[in-house]
Amino acid sequence: MKLIRIKVDSEEFIEHDWPREYERLGGRALSSTIISREVPPMSHPLGESNKLIIAPGLMAASPVPCCNKLSIGAKSPLTGGIKESNVGGRVAYRLARLGIGALVLEGAPLSSHPRAIILSSKRPTIERVDELIGLGNYETHKKLQELYGPRAAILSIGPAGELKLGGACIISGDNDDHPGRAAGRGGLGAVMGSKGIKAIVIPHSKAEKTVPNKNQKEIKEIAKNFSEYLRKSRAILTKYGTAGMIDLANGVGGLPTRNYRTGTFEGVEKINAAALYETIKDRGGSTSAACTPGCPIRCSNVYLDEEKNYLTSSLEYETMCMVGSNLGIDDLDAIARLDRTCDDLGLDTIETGATLGLAMEAGLVEFGDGDGALTLVEEVYKGTVMGRLIGSGVTTFARVMGIERVPQVKGQSFPAYDPRIFKGMGSTFATSPMGADHTAGPAIPGRKGLDPNKEISLTDPEGQAELSHDLQILVAILDQLGLCLFAGPEVRNLSFWKDILNARFAWDITEDDILEMGKSLLRTEIDFNKRAGINEKGNKLPDWLREEPLKPSGKVFDVDPEELSKLDF
Amino acid sequence: MKLIRIKVDSEEFIEHDWPREYERLGGRALSSTIISREVPPMSHPLGESNKLIIAPGLMAASPVPCCNKLSIGAKSPLTGGIKESNVGGRVAYRLARLGIGALVLEGAPLSSHPRAIILSSKRPTIERVDELIGLGNYETHKKLQELYGPRAAILSIGPAGELKLGGACIISGDNDDHPGRAAGRGGLGAVMGSKGIKAIVIPHSKAEKTVPNKNQKEIKEIAKNFSEYLRKSRAILTKYGTAGMIDLANGVGGLPTRNYRTGTFEGVEKINAAALYETIKDRGGSTSAACTPGCPIRCSNVYLDEEKNYLTSSLEYETMCMVGSNLGIDDLDAIARLDRTCDDLGLDTIETGATLGLAMEAGLVEFGDGDGALTLVEEVYKGTVMGRLIGSGVTTFARVMGIERVPQVKGQSFPAYDPRIFKGMGSTFATSPMGADHTAGPAIPGRKGLDPNKEISLTDPEGQAELSHDLQILVAILDQLGLCLFAGPEVRNLSFWKDILNARFAWDITEDDILEMGKSLLRTEIDFNKRAGINEKGNKLPDWLREEPLKPSGKVFDVDPEELSKLDF
Repeated sequence: MKLIRIKVDSEEFIEHDWPREYERLGGRALSSTIISREVPPMSHPLGESNKLIIAPGLMAASPVPCCNKLSIGAKSPLTGGIKESNVGGRVAYRLARLGIGALVLEGAPLSSHPRAIILSSKRPTIERVDELIGLGNYETHKKLQELYGPRAAILSIGPAGELKLGGACIISGDNDDHPGRAAGRGGLGAVMGSKGIKAIVIPHSKAEKTVPNKNQKEIKEIAKNFSEYLRKSRAILTKYGTAGMIDLANGVGGLPTRNYRTGTFEGVEKINAAALYETIKDRGGSTSAACTPGCPIRCSNVYLDEEKNYLTSSLEYETMCMVGSNLGIDDLDAIARLDRTCDDLGLDTIETGATLGLAMEAGLVEFGDGDGALTLVEEVYKGTVMGRLIGSGVTTFARVMGIERVPQVKGQSFPAYDPRIFKGMGSTFATSPMGADHTAGPAIPGRKGLDPNKEISLTDPEGQAELSHDLQILVAILDQLGLCLFAGPEVRNLSFWKDILNARFAWDITEDDILEMGKSLLRTEIDFNKRAGINEKGNKLPDWLREEPLKPSGKVFDVDPEELSKLDF
Repeated sequence: MKLIRIKVDSEEFIEHDWPREYERLGGRALSSTIISREVPPMSHPLGESNKLIIAPGLMAASPVPCCNKLSIGAKSPLTGGIKESNVGGRVAYRLARLGIGALVLEGAPLSSHPRAIILSSKRPTIERVDELIGLGNYETHKKLQELYGPRAAILSIGPAGELKLGGACIISGDNDDHPGRAAGRGGLGAVMGSKGIKAIVIPHSKAEKTVPNKNQKEIKEIAKNFSEYLRKSRAILTKYGTAGMIDLANGVGGLPTRNYRTGTFEGVEKINAAALYETIKDRGGSTSAACTPGCPIRCSNVYLDEEKNYLTSSLEYETMCMVGSNLGIDDLDAIARLDRTCDDLGLDTIETGATLGLAMEAGLVEFGDGDGALTLVEEVYKGTVMGRLIGSGVTTFARVMGIERVPQVKGQSFPAYDPRIFKGMGSTFATSPMGADHTAGPAIPGRKGLDPNKEISLTDPEGQAELSHDLQILVAILDQLGLCLFAGPEVRNLSFWKDILNARFAWDITEDDILEMGKSLLRTEIDFNKRAGINEKGNKLPDWLREEPLKPSGKVFDVDPEELSKLDF
C-alpha cells in the first residue's frame, strides 16, 4: 500500500511506501493523524499549510459490506478545528484496489487555473481544466465521464468550492454515477478549492486488484452473515431510505421547523417517507439505490421531476428537514430542486438549509417559499455577494446580518435534530471535536452507549453526555474501518469489528484494542483543536437552547454543562 | 458617586451607591471588571447577557489635563473577547461632574423601536426615537442638540450600529459638538445597537458640580506644570495632529499601502501632515482642535471641503492611512469624505479601511478609486448585503470572499502599522487581549518599556515582546485614569500617576501599586478571554506576515513566537 502526496504547486506526485507508524490507521484515523502531525494548528484553513487528506477505511474493498465510506479531512474553514467528513461512492473502493491508502493534497497552487488530478493506474497526472471553471458538479461529472469513462470514480467541487465558501462540500458520484453524495460538513470543498483542484478522477482500470485478506475464508463467512443480517434488519432503510426519520422526529417534537422555532411541522405528511416513496414510485424513479459498491442496504434513491426526468439522487432525511421543514417548505419537488441545486453547486444541504432558515427569518424570503429559496441559492452560480453569503454558512451569515440566535456550535450549523428534544444529539453537537455534526455521535431514539443494558430516554437530561461520549467512540471506530453509520453503532458488539480486522490483517487485537482505537482518535482530534485554540470552553450549545422552550413540548436543552465540559476520552 | 444600571427591557434605571469593591476602579478597569464578573464569557456578544459599560476614568474632570477619555466596554462582536475602546468628547467630563462613575446597559430590548437615554440631572429617562431610525450620526447629533441644547454630550450609533455590524463604532461629539470622535474598535456600536439604544444624551446642566480633590492645592500645581509640559513637548501634535506619523511610517517602510502589500506609498506627499496642514489652512478649517474639555494638546482638526464647507473633523493618522495609503488613495478630499461617511455611518475607519483594502484586492473597486470606495461604504446606508459585508470587518469579509491573507488578530483588523516593520506594535497586535489594537501597547518609534535605559530598535526582533508587554501595562494604567495616550507612556515615570491619584483621593499608593493596577487589569481581561475560549494559542499574527517579505525593505515579522506566547502579567 502506498501514500501519495500531491504537491499542488509543483504538480508533483510523491509516492511513499506505507509509513510504519500508520500501519494500523485507516479512514478518519489517517486523515486526523496526518493533519495533527503536519498541519500547523493555527494556520489559515485556506492557506498553503492546510492539507486535504483522502483516505479509504481499513476495510475498504473487503468482502464485508458497507465498508467503502471514504474519509476526507482537513483543518475546517467553518470550525477552525480538525474535520473529517465521509462520503459514499466508488472512490474508497477503487483507491483500495489500486493499493492507495491515502492521498495528501498539499501546498498552494501557483496559478488560478483549476486542475484535475487523474489517478490513472500508469502515471498519475494533473491536468489543467479551464473548461470546467464555474461548472456545477453535474456538468463536471458528465464531462469527466466523457473523457475518462462512465465508471470513473469522481470527487469534485462545484462553484461553491471554487469560491472557497464555508458551506462548500466535496461531491462524489454514487454507484450509479449520479453526483449526489457529499462529504458535506466542515467546508472541505473550500479547502479543495483553495488547493486549485476541481476534481479527482480515478478511471476504471485493469490495474485494480482484489485486496487480499489474510483469512479469506473467515472474512467471507463473516461477510455473508453480516450481509444477511443487514438485509433483514435494515428493511425499513432499504424501502424508505433515511426519510423515515421525518415522522419520527416530528412525532417526538424535535423536527427542526422554520429555523428551529418549532419541533413539529404541519406539512409533515407531504414530505415524509411515505410521501417520498409514493412520489418516487409514481414517477418511476428508484426508491432504493446503493451509494457504495456492493451495499446491501441501498438507502439511497433517485428522484424524478414532474416530467419524469431525473432531478436528483440520495434525498436524505437531513436534507429533507433542513431545506424542507426548517424552511417551512412542504413540497417534495421544491425540496428535491434545492437538493439538486446544492449538489450541483457543491453546497452542504445541512449548512445551507440552516442558513436559509436564518435568511427567511430575516425576511429575505418568506418561509415556505421554495422558489424564493432556490433563487437565493442560485446566486452562488453568479458569485454575487448574496450568493457568497448564503454559501458561507450560518455563523458568517449571522455575523453579517447581525443575528444572535444562531443554530451552531464551533461555527458549524446544527444538523436536522433539535437539541431540546434530541438531548444526546445535542450533547454530541456541543462536545464533538467536529462541531455540530450528527454523524459524530448519532444519538437517535433508542440508541445505547457502551453498556447495552442502560436505557436512555430521548429527552431526559440524565445520561445524555455519557451516551454521546460512547457513541462518539463507536463512530470513531466505524470511521476508521470505512464502515457506514447505517451498518454501525447498533452493531455495538466490538467483537464483530475486532473479528473483521483480525480476519483481514491477521492481527490479534482485542475488543479493548478496538475501543482504544476510537478513544485515541478522539484524543488526537481534541488535542489538535486545543493547539488550534479550541478548547473545552467551546463545548457548549448556544444559550438560547437553554432559554427558549421548543414548541409544542416546551422543552429546553438541560443537560448539565459540567458533564459536557468534562467529557474526555 | 453612583453606578447606574439601565435595563433596556423594562426601561428602568437602577442607581447604586458606589460599590465598595469598585472603590479604586475607573475607566477600563471598571468596564473590564464588570464584564468579567457579570457577562457569561461564552454568551453571544449581541445577546441579552452582554453588557455595555460606559465609565469615565479616575481622574475625569480633574484639573489635570487630558484626563477626560471615556472607556466603553463589552464582550466584543469582533473578537468574542473582552473589549474596551476609549473616546474623547464631553461625556466622561460630564458624567464625572454628575457624580456618575459608570453606566451599565443590560438586557435585551422588548421592541425594535430604538430608544435614546437622556441623563438629565433630575430624572433619567428612556425615550422612543423613531425619528432617528437609520439616521447618520451627523443628523442624529443635530436633532438631539436641537432638543437638548448645543452643549449636550452625546454618544450615538449610526446605521452600522443599528444593523449590528462588527465594524460598528460608537460616536461621541467632540468639544465643538462635531460627531467625529469614535470608540472605534471591537464593534461596540453593534452591542449598543443590540441593546436598542440609538443615543445617550447628557444635556448641559446646573446640577453638574466640580469634582472634589482631597488635596486641591497640590493637584492644581501638578496640573499647571503638566499642562505647561504638554504644551511644550507636544507642539508637533498641536500643529499637525497625528498625521505626522504618515511620513514617519513611510520613512521606515511600514506604512500600510494597498492592503499591506508595500510599506511605502508613492503618493505620500499628497496626504502627509504638511499637505493636510496646508489644505486645512488654505480653506479656513482648524488645524488644531480639542476633543475633550480643557485639552492643551488639541491634536484634532476640522477639515473643510473644496467649497470651504465643513466636511469632517479629527482626521487622524490611522484613518488617513487605512482609507488613504492602504487603499492607494492619494487624495485628501477623498480620504476626508470616507472619514466623514464612516463617522456618519458609525463605522470604525480602521476596520473599514482594512476591509476596503481586501475588497480592492478582490477587484470590487480599483486601488486608488476614492469614489468607488465611497460608493461601497455608502451601501451601509441602504442596508444592502454588500453594505453589511463591508461593515462587518475584515475577518467576516474574508470568510465570505474566500480570502486567506487577512490582516487581523482575534478577528479584529490591524490598525495602520505594518507589523513587519513595527515589530513591537506587531507584538501588541498578537498578544493584547483586545485583538489587533495599536492603542493597547503603542510601540511607535522611540518608545521605551519600563526600563528607560533600554533602547529598542524598531525593526529588531529582540526585545519587542518585552516592549509590548511593558507598554500594555502602561496603557492599562492610563486607561484607568482616563488619561489620553498622547499625554501618556512617554511620561512613564509612574510617580506622576501616583501623585495625581494620591492628590485627588488622598490615597497613599506607591509606584508599585500603580504598576500593579495595570497588571491586574490585564490579568482580569486575559482571564475573561480564557473563560470565553480565547487562550494564548490565539496570541499570534497570521502566518503570511512571517512568510511574505514587505516591500521595499524585504522584512518579515520575526519576533520569537515563544516569547509572544509566554507573555503574562
